[in-house]
Amino acid sequence: MTNAPSSRHPEGRDTTSSTALTKVLEDPWWDLRQEVLEAMATSPLQPHRDEDLDRYRSAVLEAVKALADRGWGRLGYPSEFGGSGDIRQAVKVFETVALGDLSVLVKFGVQFGLFGGSVWQLGTEEHHREFLARIGRLEVPGCFAMTERAHGSNVRELETVATYHPEDEEFEIHTPSEAAEKDWIGNAALHGQVATVFARLRTGGVDYGVHAFLVPIRTPGGTVMDGVEIGDRGRKVGLNGVDNGTLRFHHVRVPRTALLNRFGTVEPDGSYHSPIEGDGRRFFTMLGTLVMGRVSIAAASVSTAKRALTIAVRYGERRRQFGPPDEEERPLLDFLAHRRLLLPRLAATYGLHFAVWDVVDRLHAHDDSPSPELEVRAAALKAYASRHAMDTIQACREACGGEGYDAANGLGALREDVDVFTTFEGTNPVLLQLVAKGLLTEYRETMGDLRFWEIVQHLARRTRKRIQKANPVAARRTERSHIRDPDFHRWAFRTREQHLLHTLAQRLQERIGGGMEPFDAVNECQDHLVTLGTAHGERLVLEAFQAGVAGARDAGTSETLRELCTLHALCRMERHAGWYLESGFMEGAKTKAIRSAVNEMLTDVRESAQMLVDAFAIPDPVLRSPAGRCCPTGGY
Amino acid sequence: MTNAPSSRHPEGRDTTSSTALTKVLEDPWWDLRQEVLEAMATSPLQPHRDEDLDRYRSAVLEAVKALADRGWGRLGYPSEFGGSGDIRQAVKVFETVALGDLSVLVKFGVQFGLFGGSVWQLGTEEHHREFLARIGRLEVPGCFAMTERAHGSNVRELETVATYHPEDEEFEIHTPSEAAEKDWIGNAALHGQVATVFARLRTGGVDYGVHAFLVPIRTPGGTVMDGVEIGDRGRKVGLNGVDNGTLRFHHVRVPRTALLNRFGTVEPDGSYHSPIEGDGRRFFTMLGTLVMGRVSIAAASVSTAKRALTIAVRYGERRRQFGPPDEEERPLLDFLAHRRLLLPRLAATYGLHFAVWDVVDRLHAHDDSPSPELEVRAAALKAYASRHAMDTIQACREACGGEGYDAANGLGALREDVDVFTTFEGTNPVLLQLVAKGLLTEYRETMGDLRFWEIVQHLARRTRKRIQKANPVAARRTERSHIRDPDFHRWAFRTREQHLLHTLAQRLQERIGGGMEPFDAVNECQDHLVTLGTAHGERLVLEAFQAGVAGARDAGTSETLRELCTLHALCRMERHAGWYLESGFMEGAKTKAIRSAVNEMLTDVRESAQMLVDAFAIPDPVLRSPAGRCCPTGGY
Repeated sequence: MTNAPSSRHPEGRDTTSSTALTKVLEDPWWDLRQEVLEAMATSPLQPHRDEDLDRYRSAVLEAVKALADRGWGRLGYPSEFGGSGDIRQAVKVFETVALGDLSVLVKFGVQFGLFGGSVWQLGTEEHHREFLARIGRLEVPGCFAMTERAHGSNVRELETVATYHPEDEEFEIHTPSEAAEKDWIGNAALHGQVATVFARLRTGGVDYGVHAFLVPIRTPGGTVMDGVEIGDRGRKVGLNGVDNGTLRFHHVRVPRTALLNRFGTVEPDGSYHSPIEGDGRRFFTMLGTLVMGRVSIAAASVSTAKRALTIAVRYGERRRQFGPPDEEERPLLDFLAHRRLLLPRLAATYGLHFAVWDVVDRLHAHDDSPSPELEVRAAALKAYASRHAMDTIQACREACGGEGYDAANGLGALREDVDVFTTFEGTNPVLLQLVAKGLLTEYRETMGDLRFWEIVQHLARRTRKRIQKANPVAARRTERSHIRDPDFHRWAFRTREQHLLHTLAQRLQERIGGGMEPFDAVNECQDHLVTLGTAHGERLVLEAFQAGVAGARDAGTSETLRELCTLHALCRMERHAGWYLESGFMEGAKTKAIRSAVNEMLTDVRESAQMLVDAFAIPDPVLRSPAGRCCPTGGY
Repeated sequence: MTNAPSSRHPEGRDTTSSTALTKVLEDPWWDLRQEVLEAMATSPLQPHRDEDLDRYRSAVLEAVKALADRGWGRLGYPSEFGGSGDIRQAVKVFETVALGDLSVLVKFGVQFGLFGGSVWQLGTEEHHREFLARIGRLEVPGCFAMTERAHGSNVRELETVATYHPEDEEFEIHTPSEAAEKDWIGNAALHGQVATVFARLRTGGVDYGVHAFLVPIRTPGGTVMDGVEIGDRGRKVGLNGVDNGTLRFHHVRVPRTALLNRFGTVEPDGSYHSPIEGDGRRFFTMLGTLVMGRVSIAAASVSTAKRALTIAVRYGERRRQFGPPDEEERPLLDFLAHRRLLLPRLAATYGLHFAVWDVVDRLHAHDDSPSPELEVRAAALKAYASRHAMDTIQACREACGGEGYDAANGLGALREDVDVFTTFEGTNPVLLQLVAKGLLTEYRETMGDLRFWEIVQHLARRTRKRIQKANPVAARRTERSHIRDPDFHRWAFRTREQHLLHTLAQRLQERIGGGMEPFDAVNECQDHLVTLGTAHGERLVLEAFQAGVAGARDAGTSETLRELCTLHALCRMERHAGWYLESGFMEGAKTKAIRSAVNEMLTDVRESAQMLVDAFAIPDPVLRSPAGRCCPTGGY
């Protein structure tokens, strides 16, 4: 460590290093981020977290308008519709907004990401010309109406119907049952005027599966359209500035052109054609619209972890409790248990930051619909980052003791708001299984079940020979240089993922080969699928973290990040010690050496901890947490 | 399994079994519990969770009054002061009240448990006669003023001073600094009239360490006493019906008899004497008052886990999502990942119930101050149960998806309120270290540091030979009967605890023997201490659970509980597989066999899941959760 500050006191902090780290995290979008942060420090971007739902929702709408007025809502759209055509800028804005009020973030995401994104990605030129610029200016507030009461995760089974009537050249949108009521729809209860409604397209007596339709639900004046029935979801655990609602359609007529017809068109005569064969494949291609949403949630989750850690690390540096007899009490971060609570989470937060931006860069480089591989990455990261955020916020709340329980310090509200990140846009357990299926099928037919079983069998046959055997010499190596070697870490993460994949394929094949229904076979191995999905995410994060370290230009910053990355890798291996031991890839002496190395690294990283959170560069007026103030006036 | 219901539908439930299980949990206090539950179903015991602090706090005060009016506040006091003299009844009431609004619970606990308990346990006859009955009737609302701004965990370093003035036969209570301000004191902001204030007793120029004093802070009319300065802690993350506040004392005079003088007395002339030698020992004896509080929090934590699981298991039985092609969708609990999320937590909740009641029975049987061993048990269970409650509530929130995020289903509010259970009455990491130190010193001088190091050295010397070596044959055994054998489970839990204890003693001894300061040596092994503290709690829970199984009288109930206990034991061992492998007590084949057994057991236990939560017998009007209704009118 050449550049870490040796002093623990704020005044002793090496501000150069903290700035250099921020540069690594925020380049090349530093200026854009600053603009957003400056706006966020002031009203209306800091709506009062009002207990009165009406007032809070109105204030949040005003905040989203303020963001739209600055052109940040349409940033991800093509320049002809007022955007930059650069999704990286859109994600940077979203990630930054996520440091503030999360109702604003989510309403912003619903309007510009989900609603606007569906028009952009599922619609065709006419839809883009008619709507995209106006959506981007929040002139047409809208909804993304996918989820139904009885179909949250299993959206392929949606029941809302869109029947084509060639005589009128219209679709009839209808909610056939209570179970089919659109539920939890953001922007629906109050502000939405148009909804992208997912419904089964029927024409000529044939059901072509789920498609998306633009359906007006309110006039610009706010009057609910005939045949539309809107309910209010009322108070939620958090995000109460977002007006979630329910939608029912009673034989509502919309023109033929209301169909967002990029992946399937109905001609005036009612004939249907699509560039994609198979209802399942087509629907899962449409679900590609969720990829950006998932990446955005991952990015926002990382922001919330940064915010929580900024508060808890600063507090842990300042707050003293216990000490040797007759000596001054020590800062909480001097204690091993406290370091173990916070620093591995700090390291993982950096890793996730790099991993999210790796996917964003890949999405940006991709000029068409995201590839199945990117969909899998996005799903893995959304699950990992949202779980990490909740876990980190809780740890930070507890690390701040009573101060963490003071509402003014913001950790409670943060947890309430972030909580649902693990559920929406694909609940985490379902996403992790989607990841595992993608890996099993080598990204072919990831989303549909077509040929899934043939591929599993093929993979199991092929991999029976390939399953890696543990090398007894490597399993025993405990030298310091080996334990801290990034190549060893990468090998360990990859080996775990590959081994989990191959043994899963074998287990499935055994069951299906033995006559078990594929559905039951998958269910019997569901914990294995989830573990594999998690291991995939962990491998992605490690690789992105190591690449991030390599990308740091000055030696001090690079060294600080390298150390943090080592800590991260060792902590994950420590957590999975049981797996490594059980599978023979490590012996007891090695897992013990890893545990010792974690404790040593925690001592090193603790010296940079405050700098590492300062590098998140969250200004006090945005952080809004007395316990986490950058330059406190005192305290214990 | 002879008695488990074969049907998954509510109407098919074997109500006999659920009632029999309830009997096991609630005997012999079924009638008392029913009385409390009936009261709780109605106002004022269901205060509106009002966002207006004033209204909510008043409503909660009314609720506590209603409980006091029924005689439930003083239940734990001796009969001469209106109680039953039976702490088991007091804990049963507390545990039951914990199924409702937790602000009511905590205000109830502050008044009758902490404030009343301090008068009862630290005071002498005169104090009892003057206060106890009136405290029990809530005629004297009071506070327990221990925590100071700068001294939350390290209460031995409290700074508030009580200086004796023999000329007036008075103590002068004084807050010497901002750091010494009493903080987070329940009942202080609005309702308290008297506070048990912990302050350093000084007489004749000597500091005798921390003692407790009864200090009036308000008149019965509510006017703040001269020299007392009261602040309001305002809005917290949860428990907003409790008026937490701050207290400062400016040279406040109280009579000599204000000293709660069971463990230390000042004569009129200022001379001091105490039955306990050593300021440290004396103070830690006084802290024994917290034992009941910790056990009560453990009991309340278990109640909150029961409530969350009742909601999530019923929802998981009712809600369907995904299914085999062209078949009906399956209930969530049919999926392995969902079972893994809920059922191990359901099993642990039963285990913790038995463990809490085991300690309560021991406390009841104990006629004097709790023994150090009981203090250690209470600390271990408080940490275990509060962690478990938070973890379970979060899992249940996620298991209910969007419905879990609906404020009306109560899981968010439950989490907000329970959150601080991990912090107050001793923050969990500190308690777990206290447990480890108690075990290291074999309960001698548990609380003080006196002779701690000599004992560690002794233990390390003695145990060097005793450290158990793994038996390679046992480490390899994987037969079904062995894996499910309760004797094996008990052996595994005990071995883990013992081995952790012995290796900890060795590690400390190596460091201290090598010249390291004891403070630093303990800090270097802090993760080991915390792990040992946790392992102790796990062993206590397993043993109490197995005893609970043995206590069930009918075969069906006993079998259901045995199965659940087996699942619990296997899940904990699965979680600690890394430790068992690393230490050589298990080989890979065995940890794999345990994992398979967990998955099998989950299938068995899933059949009884609904019955197991029905046995918690939480009536719908107390549960207040549409998603968790006992007899729903429909749903998906």
